Amino acid sequence: LLVFAARREHIAQVITPTLARGAWVLSDRFTDATYAYQGGGRGVALEKLALLERWVHADLEPDLTLIFDVPPEIAQARYRGDRGASDRFEAEQIAFFGAVREAYLRRARENTRRIRVVDASLSIAEIQAKLREIVPLG
Amino acid sequence: LLVFAARREHIAQVITPTLARGAWVLSDRFTDATYAYQGGGRGVALEKLALLERWVHADLEPDLTLIFDVPPEIAQARYRGDRGASDRFEAEQIAFFGAVREAYLRRARENTRRIRVVDASLSIAEIQAKLREIVPLG
Repeated sequence: LLVFAARREHIAQVITPTLARGAWVLSDRFTDATYAYQGGGRGVALEKLALLERWVHADLEPDLTLIFDVPPEIAQARYRGDRGASDRFEAEQIAFFGAVREAYLRRARENTRRIRVVDASLSIAEIQAKLREIVPLG
Repeated sequence: LLVFAARREHIAQVITPTLARGAWVLSDRFTDATYAYQGGGRGVALEKLALLERWVHADLEPDLTLIFDVPPEIAQARYRGDRGASDRFEAEQIAFFGAVREAYLRRARENTRRIRVVDASLSIAEIQAKLREIVPLG
């Protein structure tokens, strides 16, 4: 409920006025992230999230969503800057982020027109090249 | 959404532990007030409130709810301590609280077993006598 209350306020105060003056809006996380973290990660029923989404922004959806996809093990190694052996806490984290990732990828399969999955295990240069294919800005 | 998020937290942190140790809980406002203010007063669809109520406390309901009912005009006069002439702002307030009151009374008609309406236009002594009838504490 708090996530969607915050989203409603963000839409009303930032996104809608920005679109109204003709600008583009780039958002780092939106409702797909809620499906991934609260749904896939924390186990909130997806039909509850779908209902709240409809209440809060039935009339607003991104034109394009990019998911930068990487296995949790690689993400964690990059984040920590090392590839040390996992302890128990890390194993739990990897399971959590694995569930989050699966929920993101399911959203992508269900919204093929809007969502593009980018393989983020590639190098930065390769990822940039992919993005130029997806969003050709001239 | 914020109202029900706060209610969920209040139930988890205060009401449930208090009931668990066998104490009584007296609450000034609960979900009937949400139906009255957000529903009747602000026009939020009642089926949305019913759904959120079910999500947040499907298994918890007061045993007894007392509504102290008084016409908005009398409430306002008591609050202000005078009976001065209404201006436009006051007329709007009276319309708002009239809608809130109607929503409370509708809740009472729909929940006759749980909700008792007490005529709060009576004197304090008369109201106290009514309460002793409803809650005979020996």
